[in-house]
Order: sequence, then C-alpha cells, then structure tokens
Amino acid sequence: MKGEKDVSEVKVEGKPEWLEELEEGIDAVPGFVCAATHCGIKEEGLDLALLVSERPSVVAGTFTTNKFRAAPVRVSEERVRKGRARAIIVNSGNANCCTDERGVRDAIETTKRVAERLGLAEEEVLVCSTGKIGIYLPVQKLLAGVDWLAANLGKNGEAAAEAILTTDTRKKTVGVRFVFEGRPFTIAGMAKGAGMICPNMATMLCFIFSDAGVEQAFLSAALREAVEVSFNSITVDGDTSTNDTVFVLANGVAGPVKEEERFNALFGEALRYVCLKLARMIVADGEGATKMVTVKVEGAPTAEDAKRVALTVANSMLVKTAVFGQQSNWGRVAAAVGRSGVEGYDPRKATVKLNGHLVLSQGGPEAVDEVSLEESMKKPEITIEVDLSAGSGSWQVWTSDLSYEYVRSNVDIP
Amino acid sequence: MKGEKDVSEVKVEGKPEWLEELEEGIDAVPGFVCAATHCGIKEEGLDLALLVSERPSVVAGTFTTNKFRAAPVRVSEERVRKGRARAIIVNSGNANCCTDERGVRDAIETTKRVAERLGLAEEEVLVCSTGKIGIYLPVQKLLAGVDWLAANLGKNGEAAAEAILTTDTRKKTVGVRFVFEGRPFTIAGMAKGAGMICPNMATMLCFIFSDAGVEQAFLSAALREAVEVSFNSITVDGDTSTNDTVFVLANGVAGPVKEEERFNALFGEALRYVCLKLARMIVADGEGATKMVTVKVEGAPTAEDAKRVALTVANSMLVKTAVFGQQSNWGRVAAAVGRSGVEGYDPRKATVKLNGHLVLSQGGPEAVDEVSLEESMKKPEITIEVDLSAGSGSWQVWTSDLSYEYVRSNVDIP
Repeated sequence: MKGEKDVSEVKVEGKPEWLEELEEGIDAVPGFVCAATHCGIKEEGLDLALLVSERPSVVAGTFTTNKFRAAPVRVSEERVRKGRARAIIVNSGNANCCTDERGVRDAIETTKRVAERLGLAEEEVLVCSTGKIGIYLPVQKLLAGVDWLAANLGKNGEAAAEAILTTDTRKKTVGVRFVFEGRPFTIAGMAKGAGMICPNMATMLCFIFSDAGVEQAFLSAALREAVEVSFNSITVDGDTSTNDTVFVLANGVAGPVKEEERFNALFGEALRYVCLKLARMIVADGEGATKMVTVKVEGAPTAEDAKRVALTVANSMLVKTAVFGQQSNWGRVAAAVGRSGVEGYDPRKATVKLNGHLVLSQGGPEAVDEVSLEESMKKPEITIEVDLSAGSGSWQVWTSDLSYEYVRSNVDIP
Repeated sequence: MKGEKDVSEVKVEGKPEWLEELEEGIDAVPGFVCAATHCGIKEEGLDLALLVSERPSVVAGTFTTNKFRAAPVRVSEERVRKGRARAIIVNSGNANCCTDERGVRDAIETTKRVAERLGLAEEEVLVCSTGKIGIYLPVQKLLAGVDWLAANLGKNGEAAAEAILTTDTRKKTVGVRFVFEGRPFTIAGMAKGAGMICPNMATMLCFIFSDAGVEQAFLSAALREAVEVSFNSITVDGDTSTNDTVFVLANGVAGPVKEEERFNALFGEALRYVCLKLARMIVADGEGATKMVTVKVEGAPTAEDAKRVALTVANSMLVKTAVFGQQSNWGRVAAAVGRSGVEGYDPRKATVKLNGHLVLSQGGPEAVDEVSLEESMKKPEITIEVDLSAGSGSWQVWTSDLSYEYVRSNVDIP
C-alpha cells in the first residue's frame, strides 16, 4: 500500500476562497518551534517529539470519551482546563494506558523535565502518548530524550509530524493562512492515527497551532465545533481509542484585531477546514484502506439521528466489505440504516443513492443503469447517500473499506 | 473451512441431566411433517420448505428489530399475534425485503396457496424468506413449489433444514426429550444463518416444534426469555438482519399434564437449551470463523449494562482480529469495554481475564505466565472475562473471529 497513498492529495469540499493552503505545516506558524528524536521506545525511527510555543498561548483540547483513559490524557486534561500552555511532549510506541498510578507519575515526571529544561511551569506542559496499551513507559529513555530535544528546538515540524506516527504510512500535516485587516494569520496542524486500527497500537492525536490572538473561551468553542464535524465524524473500525487527544494552541504573535467577531467567524471556519482535512487524511491512510467512503444522511428527525445512521452505515462490516469488493450491494446499506436505532421515519419513504444512482425508493428497488453503477463502484471515492424524508437533520461521515490488508495488518505483529 | 466444521459438536454448558439429547431434529416431534424442494430461486439446491403441524398448534414468535423489515416478517408478525398456526412456508435465496407492497402481496399469495392445498385458513400459514435484499420474488416458481410440497409431506426434517440455508456450511438441528408424569415430551428445532454475514444474504431463521400442550401466553414468555439469552446474545458482525425470525409451535399431541407449573419450568429450561445450542451452532458456522469466543461480563451495574459491554467487546474488529491472530492483546478488550457507553464503574477496579489468566487489575497490567497464555490463544475456544466490580449485573455472549476468510466470503460473489 505504502507507495500508492498520498494523503496530502485528500480533497475537502468547500474550502473558502479567502483561505490559502500552505506547503508547510506547523513550521509556518510564527512563534512555534519543535524537535524530534529517537529515544528508544520503538526499535527504530523517531519516537519522541517536543512542540513548544515561544510565548504564552491559550489552549483548548478535546479528549477521548473512553472510560479507560490513558495516564497522559488524565494529566493533560486537568492542565488544559487552566487555559494556558507552552509545550507538548509526545511519544509514540507506548500508549501509557492501563498502567495504573505509576503511569500517571511517569507522565508527570516527563513534563517536569520539560519544564525544567525550558524554564516553564510544570503545569504549562502537556503530554501525549500513543502505542501499545498495558506497558509501563521506559521513563529514563524519555528523560534523556527530553534533554536532547530541549537543546535542539527549531523549525522541525516535519520530523515532529513523523515522530508521532505509529503504523501510519504517511505524515499528516496541514497549513492555512488568511488575511484580515491587512495582516496574515496562520493555522497549521499535524495528526496521527487511523482510527484505532494499528497493530497493538491505539490513538488519534492532533496538534494545531496558530499565531492568532483569540480568547480561550472562543478557542474552546471553535475547537469543539470543528472536532464534532471532523474527527468525531470519521471511523475506520468503530473502536474509540483510550488516548485520543486534540490540542490547539494560539499564541497571539500575529497581533490583535479590531473586528473580533468577524475575525472569529473566519478563524472558526479555517480551523474547521484544518480539522476536516487532517481527519480525512487519517481515513485515507487507514490500515488496509483502498477506498474513501463518504456517507451523507439527510432528512433525519435530528442532526444527532442523522449522525447515528451515518456512523452505523460507516461501521457496518457488510457495507465495508461490499465497498472493498466494489459491489453495488445497497441492501446492506438499507439493513444498516434500519438497525441504527433511530426512530421517527417511515422506511417506505427513505431513499438510498450509491454514487449518485437512486437504488431504493418507495420501499422498493429502483430501475438503475447497472453497468454505469457497477463501473462507478471501481472508483477510489464512493458516496452513499441516505434520505429518511422525516426532517431536516443531516450529517456526513467518512470511512474506509474492510480489506484483506486490514485483517493482515491487525494480526501480523512484527 | 467446509470439511473442518461439525457444528453438531458445539458444546453448551449446563445441559440439565433430565434432558435427553436426540439424534433427530424436528422429525422426532409427533404431529409435525415437512417437505423441501428446489423451486428455482437458487441456481441449484433446495430452496423451498414447508413445515406443517397436523393439528392446531399454539404459536409464539420473535422478529427482527430492524426498521427495514422484510415483507414476510410484516405478514407473519400479524398472524402470530393471533396465537395459532398450522404451517410455515420458507424460501431461501431471496429475502423479499425492500420490495415494497408487491413484496407483501407476493408473501400473502404464497401463504394462500399453502392454505388452499392443505385445507387451512390463510391466517394459519406463516411465511419466511432469506437471501438477497431488493429483488422481487419469482412467485410463479414458489406457487409451483408449494403444490409439490403439499403433496409430499412427511418426516423430511433434514431436507427442510437444508432448504432454509444460504451460505451456511452446515445444517443446524437440535432435538431434546424429557419425561414428565411418566410421559415423554419432545422439543426440536432447526436454524439457519451466521449473523448477517453471508454474501448478499441476510437473516437468521429458527423454527422450533414441540408436542407439549402449553398455553400460548406461557409459550410467548418462555420464547422471549430463551431468545434473549441465546439468539440475542450472539454476534458475528453486529449487523442485525431485516428478516430475523424465530417461531415455536406446540401442538399438544403429548397430552395434558397435571402439574402445569412444574412442567412449564422444565419446558422453559428445555426450550432455552434448544435455543442456546442452535445459537451457538450459528456462531460456530459463522463465515470465516476459526474460533468460538465466549465473552462473560460480571459485576456490571445492571444485566443490561453487562450485555452492552459484552456485545461491544464481541463486535470489536480489533478484538476479533486479535483472536484470529491468536494474540493475547488484552488492551483491545479494555479499550472496547471503555467505549461501550456503560457508566457507573471505576476502570481501576475492573479486571480482565483471557482464557482464565488475569491480565488487567487495579488499573494496570498483571504479571502473567506469557508462554502459557500465548499457548492458550491457539485453542479453538477462547474465553474473555470482564469484571467491572460495580454490581451484580452479568451477561454472556458468543462471537466468532475476523479472518481473511470472512472478508473473502463477503466480497467474492459467485
């Protein structure tokens, strides 16, 4: 698969014209530096990254809803609540999850070393881990790594984006810029993960940086909204990780704005775009993925209902294998819609479209150009549209297919 | 896979000593006859069966909760409510689902022909279909088939059990007998399906017959209870079919009993055993299944919570691939428990056991004999035990693993 994927080519509908997409990732954001190293958690390759804001930044974060939350999630969540942060230390290869109180102490000790080396308060340092569950961190290796990283900070965004990967086949970075009141504002981020599909691994991580000077309360609200339609609307295998974390830091280096409300609207839209693109990169790089599937649900009683239907279709093993097999097997879509648990619609009024072809309406099969439909199932992008004709609730999710390669990548542990 | 499976060897814990297991299936039940034929829905093989009670029988049924319920489900459900039935006509190869009002008319027309040929009231005839969704029934072929079947009724249980299969590799029949007040009472049934995992196919069907003379209200309650712990506690792929149906008919041929309450307790237990065994046969014959996995959850706040946790673990693609890969990757179990949505427990007090080995307790990994644990993962039966230490709710479900063969069987359409 490796050679075939270019996740940076992932298309996202509706990029605003005023938003310029950059070649660079977080290196494009003034006031942020980073470094990456191999500290010895993985057998080879970069496995530790330090991301630093040179100035105080406001921070917002969202975390996994899994009850078995990893130690770094517990530590970072408390610190993010204070609304300010300066640094993120993140390792790959070990999730530091199901590691009891020792895991928490290990996470705190790592942040303490970062704080000492950079002259920060311990509470300004956030921590993330991704990798295998149930193994204690090799703390001494991490501390030595921190010492090296603190002395080697710079515009090393690409190395950092690589150091946070586990079995991802590609780095995932996005940078955008827009002009407001005559000045440029930048937002850029990196992400890792492919659902929770990696062999022995877990976690979706995403770090976003901006030089905008937004309020913390606004930043939190904008992030929640962006995450809901992006990272919370993708699925590879339906397995919510124990370590999922998204951080956004904004350092205000670009200076204040006069029309704050109008600026915030643009900032929110730009942030959503960055999240959407990173989320779709994760799906495109999903283990074993050969197709990118968009599931659009309309006409549901509520948006929440629409999301539930969309996720049920997107997580159906039968739908996913049908897509992998390039089959126009829409009965599986109807069956998934019907078992989603959503009520308040009449199945006889629901419609299903595959790649734009109407296949189910008025409770029965539609006459369809089979040749053209079958041909369309061979494309790398598949669209499944469901209209429940029962309201104005709509939602859109993205998923990958279920291939032999998915099974292989989850059973062949090196 | 075909040659390796012998689903009749499936073991069910706790068969009562007073219950005798029979070699025969429904042919063992006095007063029931059947016939099977190839009517031309499938390209080859038996595809139509007629099951008949020679005497009026009380009937109870349970049906799919899928909103897209097939036409035969809609027709049969209404008829079962009347509590009496004499015959079941069932075809394989076509689900008669998403076939609008024409599908309902087709189902009714088929039952009408059965009623005419057997001299029954139309409403005493139930109907089931299993197979591909979204295709109209070839009704003329069915009607011709019915004519032949009605003229050839007899002790043809094995042929009928074969005629209801789609891609199942084995017939699934169970018969039991117990003695009460000096007389024998028989319960026997047949089932088909492997979740909704068959290529293009859907449906779990189960037909159970008894010569006991139980009341309809008791039969309904006993069936609901038995189905909840058996068919509603198995999962292959998490996809609830549009056609799932279980019928139980009791004709009273064995005569009345004096101690009805005590008899009903035994009958209920025997019925549960029959359902449990048929359900486990379905899992054992799951497409691509190489392992039978038992997931036991204890210590949940409620039994419903325990079931939810158990089903989340059993449906996790990561857990299923780990089992296929014979890995003791318990972090995936913990992650599935944590995302189940169940609240009211402390993850630090939860324990996980794999094949009897304690692997997670007090929030962290347990020292475990890795060699012995790894060796145990190679066995065909795998046990996952979760104790949430938060109450007395417990539940048990059975599932299969996720193999290359599962994917193959769902993409290679003949």
